[in-house]
Amino acid sequence: MEREKTFEEILEEISEFLEARQFKAARDILIEHNAVVIAELLDEIIDDIGMDKAVILFRMLPKHISVDVFAYLPLDDQVDIISSVTEKETEYILDEMEFDDMIDVLEELPANVVDKIIAKTSRDKRRLINTFLNYPDDCAGSIMTPNYISLREDFNVEEALAYVKKEGMDSETIYTCYVKDQGRSLLGIVSLRTLVISDDNVPITDIMKDDYVYVNVYDDREEVSEVFKKYDFLALPVVDKENRLVGIITVDDIIDVIEEENTEDFERMAGILDDSDKRYLDTSVIHNVKTRLPWILILMVSLMITGHIITKFEDVLSQVIVLVAYLPLLMGTGGNTGSQASTLVIRGIALGELVLSDAVKVLLKELRISLCIGIIISVLNFAKIYFFDGQSVFIALTVSLSMLFIVMIAKSIGGMLPLGAKRVGIDPALMATPMISSITDMMSVIIYFLLASAILGI
Amino acid sequence: MEREKTFEEILEEISEFLEARQFKAARDILIEHNAVVIAELLDEIIDDIGMDKAVILFRMLPKHISVDVFAYLPLDDQVDIISSVTEKETEYILDEMEFDDMIDVLEELPANVVDKIIAKTSRDKRRLINTFLNYPDDCAGSIMTPNYISLREDFNVEEALAYVKKEGMDSETIYTCYVKDQGRSLLGIVSLRTLVISDDNVPITDIMKDDYVYVNVYDDREEVSEVFKKYDFLALPVVDKENRLVGIITVDDIIDVIEEENTEDFERMAGILDDSDKRYLDTSVIHNVKTRLPWILILMVSLMITGHIITKFEDVLSQVIVLVAYLPLLMGTGGNTGSQASTLVIRGIALGELVLSDAVKVLLKELRISLCIGIIISVLNFAKIYFFDGQSVFIALTVSLSMLFIVMIAKSIGGMLPLGAKRVGIDPALMATPMISSITDMMSVIIYFLLASAILGI
Repeated sequence: MEREKTFEEILEEISEFLEARQFKAARDILIEHNAVVIAELLDEIIDDIGMDKAVILFRMLPKHISVDVFAYLPLDDQVDIISSVTEKETEYILDEMEFDDMIDVLEELPANVVDKIIAKTSRDKRRLINTFLNYPDDCAGSIMTPNYISLREDFNVEEALAYVKKEGMDSETIYTCYVKDQGRSLLGIVSLRTLVISDDNVPITDIMKDDYVYVNVYDDREEVSEVFKKYDFLALPVVDKENRLVGIITVDDIIDVIEEENTEDFERMAGILDDSDKRYLDTSVIHNVKTRLPWILILMVSLMITGHIITKFEDVLSQVIVLVAYLPLLMGTGGNTGSQASTLVIRGIALGELVLSDAVKVLLKELRISLCIGIIISVLNFAKIYFFDGQSVFIALTVSLSMLFIVMIAKSIGGMLPLGAKRVGIDPALMATPMISSITDMMSVIIYFLLASAILGI
Repeated sequence: MEREKTFEEILEEISEFLEARQFKAARDILIEHNAVVIAELLDEIIDDIGMDKAVILFRMLPKHISVDVFAYLPLDDQVDIISSVTEKETEYILDEMEFDDMIDVLEELPANVVDKIIAKTSRDKRRLINTFLNYPDDCAGSIMTPNYISLREDFNVEEALAYVKKEGMDSETIYTCYVKDQGRSLLGIVSLRTLVISDDNVPITDIMKDDYVYVNVYDDREEVSEVFKKYDFLALPVVDKENRLVGIITVDDIIDVIEEENTEDFERMAGILDDSDKRYLDTSVIHNVKTRLPWILILMVSLMITGHIITKFEDVLSQVIVLVAYLPLLMGTGGNTGSQASTLVIRGIALGELVLSDAVKVLLKELRISLCIGIIISVLNFAKIYFFDGQSVFIALTVSLSMLFIVMIAKSIGGMLPLGAKRVGIDPALMATPMISSITDMMSVIIYFLLASAILGI
């Protein structure tokens, strides 16, 4: 991967030519690289120099290259380019794209542009596009392609291979072939590997797998990615309610789904409610305010309640003002230890390792872990407060005992809350750090001041 | 995916038979399912009923099934089973496994067991195993397999297909074939798709791709997964320093790498430093204390400093004790808004969307976002504190102005810190919620009390 070292230099060189409006020179540098690298360069050019010049450059690429480059561009760049080129070019580009990628682009375009594009296609293709456009974003249908190899049940291996050879060019994958009956129902699947290593005159029905795994067109795409992870498939058939094969999902699209689902989890765990797949730099300020503010407001309510609890203990505080100095330590440690537990449990649920019936195991485990950690840090804190800060033994005892209780409660809540959310149908990822911190803050304040009242006799 | 509904019932049925020591009945239920489901059931049985009975059940499976089931078991179950069956069974199971999966198992077994197993293999295989065992855990070599199809450069398509047909059974994938010269150097790659759709007498060298992408055996496996995401490959060649082909990496292993790397990021972002791939329920209490305590201790130091800062303002506090009531609100909101920014930036870096040179863009973006969010919540807080809490206009002003500054600083730090970490070679994921909260806590306290002194004139 030596290439990476010079990426910035290539970019700079092209940028200079573009600034000088020497498009041909810029193009000549571009076409020395493969489609993936050209796409990356073009993406940077769009960001840095602007869409106008990038589109001119794109249109100067040889057609067979531009089609490949287009396929590797991020979705928002694709949509921008389609909106900037001629209808004829649009037609050509979309025609050469994988069907499922084309649908992604069409989904982002304004309805009138889509109508214009679809109007030019054949009736069969138009109907297919409309069906695909109607699948919800998060279901199997939205990531499948209708371009697969389907074999007739009366084929033998030789006929099947001849058919694959003829149709292979236009299919997204030829490595898994699908055997269908007259009624378009899926009878079985046969891998190209099996075809290649079998003898010519063997009937397809003899070597096909008929206990294949499949998904329904409305299954959640996260479930689909679970199936891929479990079975190490390269492709998976998608059927409709009547059990007819309507498309296949290939592993390259699943990798994207996995990354998107993970990104969604990361964002939810940080209190960001964003359903778009846009990259950080491509989102607007307004979009960010909309996706970040709601959770901040909800958490503010809980933080206000914590503040309100503190006012109830104002008389304790005013007598021993030094108690305030240890409040951040207790609240912060509660939040930190609690979110360690919640993160592990949320991740366990996401990976399918933890289910509801594990709740007791999780609770017992977190209690034992928090007892160990709690005792260690309580002892350390007692020593620090008593010997180093020079506070009374009562203050040291109050803080360190509070610490032990807070860590144990924080880790228990952190472990149980995601499972509880799962139970009632809320995304466990929402029960992450900010939520746990808010709850442990409240608990911390109550525990701390109650113990202070008791130990200090206020 | 109807099957999922009855998984618990099947498990219960088998468990009852096992408790009653009716192993044959339990086995008969098990073998009705496919290898993946049997592996899942067995994993549950190991957890719930124990390894003793699970191993008996495993050994009663027909050999061809048990080998498949073994391949789908989690690594720790595999290691436990290998330690519980006879040497002959071990030999058979490992012999039937994919080479790269076998290496994973061998890596976890005690050295003396490994030695015994290796002693029985042929000299060539022994040398190969030893080479693979020596690759560091996080490099391309650790996830590659030596079982690929390599074609001679003087083959034509017909000879190549005949060779694939002969050797296809023992290769991890046959969908990408590798053309090597006499010196074992990689000349080019050719997909089975190209072979199948090409005419018989075309020379391989005419249709192979010679501008193929490859990785080095010591490249980081995270970089390798980036290459897969970019190029939508099914397999990728791995070469050594002398450019000789030493193995290939297949996409199914990359999916595991992506999930493991994501899990590592989730854990680091929550302050858990765990390099093992063990599942939550399979880790010991000691392991959890070791992986969670260090970061808690580091963060405690910063929380103590925050506490220390508060003591410096004790005279302000003792005069206006109500200020304490708004401390959690300010610190909490600072942490929450800061970690929203840091999470988005950390994720952007992980996905390769953000690089160091984007720092200024990130800062400007976060400043604008935080200005919007800051103004909204400051106004809300002013109103709430003045009208609802009935505090003086000065208190309300202190809190709401502090809020605005804290949100802006928190989001700026949250956006910049991960990029700064990347710059100095620290994992950006470590600059997540707990770290950001600790820093914003300090800033919050300082801003709040300085503003209080100024506005309240203390």
